Amino acid sequence: DKVKPIFGILPKVADNPANPVTPEKVNLGRYLFFEPRLSKSAKISCNSCHSLANSGVDGLPTSIGHKWQIGPRNAPTVLNAALQFTQFWDGRAKDVEEQAMGPMLNPKEMASTKELVVQRLKSIPQYEEMFHKAFPEDTDPITFENAAKAIAAFERTLLTLSRFDRYMDGDLSALSPEEKEGLKTFIQTGCITCHNGTDIGGGMFQKFGLVHKVEWLQDLGRFEVTKNPADKYVFKVPSLRNVTKTAPYFNNGRVWSLEEAVKTMGYVQLGKNLSDEEVKKIVSFLGSLAAEPPLQITLPNLPPSTAKTPKPMP
Amino acid sequence: DKVKPIFGILPKVADNPANPVTPEKVNLGRYLFFEPRLSKSAKISCNSCHSLANSGVDGLPTSIGHKWQIGPRNAPTVLNAALQFTQFWDGRAKDVEEQAMGPMLNPKEMASTKELVVQRLKSIPQYEEMFHKAFPEDTDPITFENAAKAIAAFERTLLTLSRFDRYMDGDLSALSPEEKEGLKTFIQTGCITCHNGTDIGGGMFQKFGLVHKVEWLQDLGRFEVTKNPADKYVFKVPSLRNVTKTAPYFNNGRVWSLEEAVKTMGYVQLGKNLSDEEVKKIVSFLGSLAAEPPLQITLPNLPPSTAKTPKPMP
Ligand code: HEC
Ligand code: HEC
Ligand code: HEC
Ligand code: HEC
Ligand SMILES: [Ca+2]
Ligand SMILES: [Ca+2]
Ligand SMILES: [Ca+2]
Ligand SMILES: [Mg+2]
Repeated sequence: DKVKPIFGILPKVADNPANPVTPEKVNLGRYLFFEPRLSKSAKISCNSCHSLANSGVDGLPTSIGHKWQIGPRNAPTVLNAALQFTQFWDGRAKDVEEQAMGPMLNPKEMASTKELVVQRLKSIPQYEEMFHKAFPEDTDPITFENAAKAIAAFERTLLTLSRFDRYMDGDLSALSPEEKEGLKTFIQTGCITCHNGTDIGGGMFQKFGLVHKVEWLQDLGRFEVTKNPADKYVFKVPSLRNVTKTAPYFNNGRVWSLEEAVKTMGYVQLGKNLSDEEVKKIVSFLGSLAAEPPLQITLPNLPPSTAKTPKPMP
Repeated sequence: DKVKPIFGILPKVADNPANPVTPEKVNLGRYLFFEPRLSKSAKISCNSCHSLANSGVDGLPTSIGHKWQIGPRNAPTVLNAALQFTQFWDGRAKDVEEQAMGPMLNPKEMASTKELVVQRLKSIPQYEEMFHKAFPEDTDPITFENAAKAIAAFERTLLTLSRFDRYMDGDLSALSPEEKEGLKTFIQTGCITCHNGTDIGGGMFQKFGLVHKVEWLQDLGRFEVTKNPADKYVFKVPSLRNVTKTAPYFNNGRVWSLEEAVKTMGYVQLGKNLSDEEVKKIVSFLGSLAAEPPLQITLPNLPPSTAKTPKPMP
């Protein structure tokens, strides 16, 4: 009970009054999450960079998009993302609804346009049906914004319980002795100053390199959004749920080893030289944050294109 | 009963005595089918071009591989592929075991090597476990060939029943009146000379342009495998299962409309000018070959890399 107030309980769904999560929206969102025709090339879907077979990430340092363009940032997991106070490393989108509009229009990612997305969807009868069911009050439901809302509704259901949640719920056997040691170290070292809340992070911005400069870091982060010099090198504190499954680490995926990432954090954020023993214990605790039971995603059966569907433009 | 001898009954599994289909192999094969670390870039998996959310195809005229290289041929569906007498448009692989080794080593597709595939897999403890379970007699089970065998075992379970199978099983209401008309036309026109057997195709080679030359066709097909001039423009007759879901059509994906593909077939293969009415009926029958019930695939949860896992090389 000492621990619960620091973190809190994972909800069933990360609901949003402005975009209520209904079964019809979630089902449509699941189809659209896997729908490569939302990209100009008709080759890239959300799942291409946030693979739900791979804990919602692509496993690459930074992501590969349209025409194999390699982006500047590491793809965070979409698992539990909806719970965060903001989206993207620099917080430039306030929620998953706003965020979902980004990649489809990003020339380096899905490289489409609002018109092309809508034209492709409107050309497919089954999507006409599914949008009407998901947005019953809309007379012309197939819009770019509704597509993003449906995807966001699906993401709002991608919340993963872990053994740590079971532990906080009172099942003290859910964590191994070493993991409990790691939890204690995680708290006493001060990691919880920034990695707290139901997502164990995702609740605030912080400078990366608060106490000691991060030598290799060039990305100015939040500064590019606010233009406020105080925001240079400021990033959203990432959620640590599933962190043992979402390597490589940091906003540019530079670090592959979780031990190294933890050691770096101790030093640059808290000015501490964590011992290998402390690092080992913390990493063991972090392992208890992985999805348990594992994610169970059934693939949609995407409807065929028609003569009216604009062709792929690789 | 007149119809059954032409097509025959779809088996539950397309077994192969040389690679018996066991639950452990199928499960491992399902993981590997979605495993992008089998590619040099760690970005491309079998599923990237044979999306099981999209009837086992990528929906592109020809496929996009490593570094966005665009290949010369259309990706056929992996659904029911194992039943065919040979694999690839030019029959250069005798079965799905042999075929599965192709893409991983193809510089334009997954661009890996046997060594890199094995090194990546051996670096991941969970794969060590899964290979031992799938190949219990092997002391050193993680081999390139065993990876292909496991993938093939998974593909051997991807057989899709359709309303047409129900009709041949005696449920005469499984086809609509128009579909029955289409079946009659499909038979009487002579399509079954080449599109027959349990896969409604996939059982023989035939020249594409048997009666009339196919103006736009450059691909020499089987000739590139046999070097026998008689094999110029000879291709495997494709299965027509799920054909309404696997546009675009022909070995280079040149034709998007199924009506046009049917009309072309009537002319170039049978020397007949099918009426729009006949084409419409045939296409309606072809719709009854789609998977019913639809495919139900649960995504695997891919195990994380370790420090020993060779990094992605995009
Ligand atoms: C080509 C790769 C690529 C594609 C396609 C892609 N994303 Fe992303 N995604 C990224 C990267 C990289 C980031 C981080 C970018 C940043 O923070 O500047 C990101 C960030 C996000 C975030 C914010 C997560 C967080 O914790 O801040 C969410 C949510 C998300 N993507 C969902 C989606 C959805 C939904 C789609 C499809 C509509 C999609 N992505 C398509 C690469 C991709
Ligand atoms: C002062 C705030 C702060 C403190 C204290 C802090 N972190 Fe972080 N943490 C961050 C920020 C900000 C990032 C994102 C850095 C970036 O931009 O890549 C981060 C990233 C991480 C990552 C990489 C996550 C990913 O998905 O890439 C791990 C792991 C991590 N922190 C663990 C810890 C541990 C363990 C501690 C305590 C030893 C700790 N953090 C203390 C702010 C903090
Ligand atoms: C980059 C795209 C791409 C990737 C990745 C890919 N394939 Fe293919 N696949 C194709 C294309 C294109 C063809 C047809 C090539 C030909 O016939 O010359 C094909 C043919 C096949 C066939 C033969 C089907 C038939 O009816 O002849 C099978 C089976 C198959 N692939 C399975 C796989 C498996 C298993 C993997 C992963 C190990 C894989 N593919 C990876 C594009 C791809
Ligand atoms: C003499 C043999 C032969 C006959 C008769 C024949 N086909 Fe084909 N069919 C083929 C071959 C070979 C191909 C592959 C052509 C290529 O290389 O793209 C093919 C391809 C097709 C395709 C495209 C499948 C795909 O996935 O791309 C359709 C549809 C089709 N045939 C329908 C028909 C219909 C309907 C008839 C009767 C009107 C017919 N065929 C008669 C040999 C034949
Ligand atoms: Ca990461
Ligand atoms: Ca993909
Ligand atoms: Ca096709
Ligand atoms: Mg594991």
